[in-house]
Amino acid sequence: MDNSEKIVYKAYKKGCDYSYTLGAFPTMELIKNKPESVRCVYVHSKYDGSVNIEEVCKEYDIEVRYSDKAINRISTKENCMIVGIFDKFQSELINENNHVLLVNPSDMGNMGTIIRSMLGFGIKDLAIIAPCADIFNPKTVRASMGALFKMRYKIYNSYEEYSKEHGNHDMFPFMLDGDKTLDIMECPKSSLYTLIYGNEATGLPSMFKDVGQSIFIPQSPDVDSLNLPISVGIGCYVFTNINKL
Amino acid sequence: MDNSEKIVYKAYKKGCDYSYTLGAFPTMELIKNKPESVRCVYVHSKYDGSVNIEEVCKEYDIEVRYSDKAINRISTKENCMIVGIFDKFQSELINENNHVLLVNPSDMGNMGTIIRSMLGFGIKDLAIIAPCADIFNPKTVRASMGALFKMRYKIYNSYEEYSKEHGNHDMFPFMLDGDKTLDIMECPKSSLYTLIYGNEATGLPSMFKDVGQSIFIPQSPDVDSLNLPISVGIGCYVFTNINKL
Repeated sequence: MDNSEKIVYKAYKKGCDYSYTLGAFPTMELIKNKPESVRCVYVHSKYDGSVNIEEVCKEYDIEVRYSDKAINRISTKENCMIVGIFDKFQSELINENNHVLLVNPSDMGNMGTIIRSMLGFGIKDLAIIAPCADIFNPKTVRASMGALFKMRYKIYNSYEEYSKEHGNHDMFPFMLDGDKTLDIMECPKSSLYTLIYGNEATGLPSMFKDVGQSIFIPQSPDVDSLNLPISVGIGCYVFTNINKL
Repeated sequence: MDNSEKIVYKAYKKGCDYSYTLGAFPTMELIKNKPESVRCVYVHSKYDGSVNIEEVCKEYDIEVRYSDKAINRISTKENCMIVGIFDKFQSELINENNHVLLVNPSDMGNMGTIIRSMLGFGIKDLAIIAPCADIFNPKTVRASMGALFKMRYKIYNSYEEYSKEHGNHDMFPFMLDGDKTLDIMECPKSSLYTLIYGNEATGLPSMFKDVGQSIFIPQSPDVDSLNLPISVGIGCYVFTNINKL
């Protein structure tokens, strides 16, 4: 519940301690997975009632507000009928789980898509090395289709900081000059792993060649590289599929 | 070369018989791969000369124009220093090649990302069933990172129309209720295939269950589905990798 009734919610800013879900689908995911973080939900007068959002809010004791003005102030998206307002949250990663580690990811849409793919393949722990795109920007939340609310994430200042906590993982940095080509019949096996990916434009720094087993996804020289979320999706698919119980 | 000097190029419209590359990278890909389609190239006065675009234009006998006004009219993107103007082109698919078939794709960014992935995995023939997103919209071109200029594509009005031309292909429709789970150790083998994907929101119509061997990419019920370009990327990776020479 929102204890400070006087906050005027406006377009998202990175510095705020709250963020927004824009649209019915991510708002439902928010309510069902992080109800304790929800401040309130705004419903537009033109909302067609196609999902039972008011009922679900009642069930979780979440305040529903009706203000087209507020929605217009908050949303950058046309025809946004539902907005959820939630407190940003932090979480520790589970050491016994497999991880994805993103080093300096810069695109919010990419980060959201990666989160959605990770959840799709059952990897629920995301480590990020700063500087990085804002994980709570409504664009990230939206691209994740609300998957963010079912995940754990933690931001580190350096690989060393991450490695101190989770150095027991087998590390697999994905690099264009990776030593091992990811051929489907020879996928690396591991009982506890971290898949590591670099920035969209620059990839991983060369020092990662000395971190675990570097991996190259076979690809044509016709392209500069694969798109980052595609590489992460393929890595997650291959590693979860080959190493499943 | 642009024979009609009097055209005032403005923000892109779908109905035009020309389109734009925004930025140095896709413009270079355009010039090198489809020089015969280039009308002219605009260079901004603030362009830093980091790529030798003027030299390359000279090599291909392509007119360079200097007009910040024209670039500002054309580009929707900030800090766009290079714009290429090109005639839209059509192409026939090569029947002896493997294909991707997209049924009613609706998102331009997704389509561009898919084209980039296909080229990355060496599948250069894209069939599309209309209605569909505009393959020549500058957003599609940009998301493809210029990969569009190394590909063939053809738009069909129905699956039947596609099938009449390429019915000799093994068809693999990717569906959430696909009959075969795409496990990495049991990937389907085929010497000539078409990977078929549906619309972002609705997937493939159920009639595709009767078209070839339907495929399900294993994924958690925690997500509604994987993002379309991720599914296409995984399909292309698996099929090209397992069926390589």
